[in-house]
Amino acid sequence: MPLKVDHDERRREIARVVEDIVLDRGIEAVTIRDVAGRVGFSTTVVSHYFRTKLEMLVFTHQEARRRAEAAVRDAVRDGASLMACAELLLPLTDERWRDWHTWFAFWGMTPAEPSIDTERRTGSESAATLFEEVIAALRAAGRLDPAIAPAEAAIDLQLIINGIASLVAQDRPAWPADRQKAELRRQLSRAGLGDR
Amino acid sequence: MPLKVDHDERRREIARVVEDIVLDRGIEAVTIRDVAGRVGFSTTVVSHYFRTKLEMLVFTHQEARRRAEAAVRDAVRDGASLMACAELLLPLTDERWRDWHTWFAFWGMTPAEPSIDTERRTGSESAATLFEEVIAALRAAGRLDPAIAPAEAAIDLQLIINGIASLVAQDRPAWPADRQKAELRRQLSRAGLGDR
Repeated sequence: MPLKVDHDERRREIARVVEDIVLDRGIEAVTIRDVAGRVGFSTTVVSHYFRTKLEMLVFTHQEARRRAEAAVRDAVRDGASLMACAELLLPLTDERWRDWHTWFAFWGMTPAEPSIDTERRTGSESAATLFEEVIAALRAAGRLDPAIAPAEAAIDLQLIINGIASLVAQDRPAWPADRQKAELRRQLSRAGLGDR
Repeated sequence: MPLKVDHDERRREIARVVEDIVLDRGIEAVTIRDVAGRVGFSTTVVSHYFRTKLEMLVFTHQEARRRAEAAVRDAVRDGASLMACAELLLPLTDERWRDWHTWFAFWGMTPAEPSIDTERRTGSESAATLFEEVIAALRAAGRLDPAIAPAEAAIDLQLIINGIASLVAQDRPAWPADRQKAELRRQLSRAGLGDR
């Protein structure tokens, strides 16, 4: 290990490996030892970054949504439409599919664990807040119907995106990127959220 | 054990215990030994019904969706509206929430396992087929707009129901039954699937 380690970067590196293991072999296959082996650190080093497997899983979930949220914020800043922003969140690419798989796995973890429960709730609230901001910004810019209520439209957007992702999760070959995008366009348009 | 055992009933009994364990402690906590302990059989007996943990999980997923599908078919036969049918699928009760938790956990399992992948796909196709049947029947009975295309409306219904369930999965206290029903009504109405 280099002398100067960027703590956060190391944690993110570990989180990416955790996502790979969850996708390849399921959450139950995630062990500190296995993660250490794949990332090329000793278990002692990994334990320095995450005290428990649970802490590692919670951070992995956080990281996946932070990446997705950052992509949307960047796109809005660059003048993207709502359709383009929403596309960034769909499992159109292998990378985003890995994120979605992590989220579903996490939603299926026991609600009895407070840190999981809190992170799940935070994730949903954070997505709703992001969507409200995006919709309000696009509405203010005259790119969405001014009559749209951001809070309600944010829920529509969550339902549409999570709904499409749920169909992909069950049958990925049936939902190639083009079909996902066409479905997104149809749903946004019906929700009055189509590009103007 | 009684001399005459209903094989399927025993498997269903075991599946219910598996759902409880997945909800209480996660998929990773499911072991043949633990299931045996909770259901009150020996591990040998449980192994007679399920050769592997994987087979047990696949059956548990199947059972949860068969129960849900049977409830919808019964409701349609009894003259229920689309809204009433869809309500049966939402995680409004503890029992249906347990089913949803099982489904999300299952969607987050590795796609590398063929039996999981097949059951996931079968589940989605089965839901789509059921929804198409229900919509076609209600349309024929004059209870839905005759212009509705059942295949497209079935996807709308999957998106709406899975979408609402995904929000419940992330923050159950924020989504009591009344709020889920109100959201369902709003979404069905906008999709042109409201009761007539």
